[in-house]
Amino acid sequence: MKEQILVDMDGVLADVYRQFLAYEFRETGVARQLESLDGVIEEDAFPGFHRHVNSAGFFRTAPKMAGSVEGLKYLNGKYRVLVVSSATEFRLSLTEKLDWMNEHFPFISWRQIILCGTKAPIRGDVMIDDHPTNLNGFDGRRIIFSQPHNRFANGDGYQRVESWQQIMRIL
Amino acid sequence: MKEQILVDMDGVLADVYRQFLAYEFRETGVARQLESLDGVIEEDAFPGFHRHVNSAGFFRTAPKMAGSVEGLKYLNGKYRVLVVSSATEFRLSLTEKLDWMNEHFPFISWRQIILCGTKAPIRGDVMIDDHPTNLNGFDGRRIIFSQPHNRFANGDGYQRVESWQQIMRIL
Repeated sequence: MKEQILVDMDGVLADVYRQFLAYEFRETGVARQLESLDGVIEEDAFPGFHRHVNSAGFFRTAPKMAGSVEGLKYLNGKYRVLVVSSATEFRLSLTEKLDWMNEHFPFISWRQIILCGTKAPIRGDVMIDDHPTNLNGFDGRRIIFSQPHNRFANGDGYQRVESWQQIMRIL
Repeated sequence: MKEQILVDMDGVLADVYRQFLAYEFRETGVARQLESLDGVIEEDAFPGFHRHVNSAGFFRTAPKMAGSVEGLKYLNGKYRVLVVSSATEFRLSLTEKLDWMNEHFPFISWRQIILCGTKAPIRGDVMIDDHPTNLNGFDGRRIIFSQPHNRFANGDGYQRVESWQQIMRIL
């Protein structure tokens, strides 16, 4: 049987940093550079964090991560893919995330999507995630997808990737 | 550490049969008895099944199962409870189910809720569910909550309960 791989949405399939920066720019007129956010958790990096993630459309209109469609198609052929997203904290995100997946990744069925509050009880052989909390609670192969907030995270057995191109090379 | 228990929503916390019968009665004026539906899967038992589950409000206004609030409070003190619901098939159900949980079971946090397409990858020590498909894919203690469609299901190691009162006696 194929191995099961858990793929995160925000910060892996969805480029939420670009979305936060766009929301911030619309409000303040200031365009910050990603590099200035290295090592800062998202809630601290974006003063409007809670307002943005609870506003209609934030998740629905998030840009895709570069290379994610080709990359997820590749994984979907080689592994049993589950897209697993922390979502129950933000009620509007639920339907928006499902619609977003259907628009951008229509080859992923509803059977392959899990929207949750914690990923700890979810089994798999490989996990791709940008949040150390999720990776640390996982007992399979841990792949950390580089995002500014996790730049200096160096957890047990992490394999760091910078892009979907790199994922396709190592998996 | 406390054992982890996976509790299903539809047919365990939510009395979806009463909801289907109410929707049907409003449309046809015919009030059927539950007993006539023994052993029939829900899609066949209710001709309007797909229309109802995809209509706004169906899950949001579903009645609670008798004794479920007291029962889930009891479990929540004794176990690590996860409420796990098959939901991604029906896009409107996602937010409605979260809102429904918050209204009727406010002591369950968003961290304890999983909305999914399949329950197979979710780990736990005990599962309470009305669907044999979910129980058969689970490797812990399997408790089947009696509902008309599962009346004659007799899977490997099932422990059958007829009510939340009975759950509180055996767990």
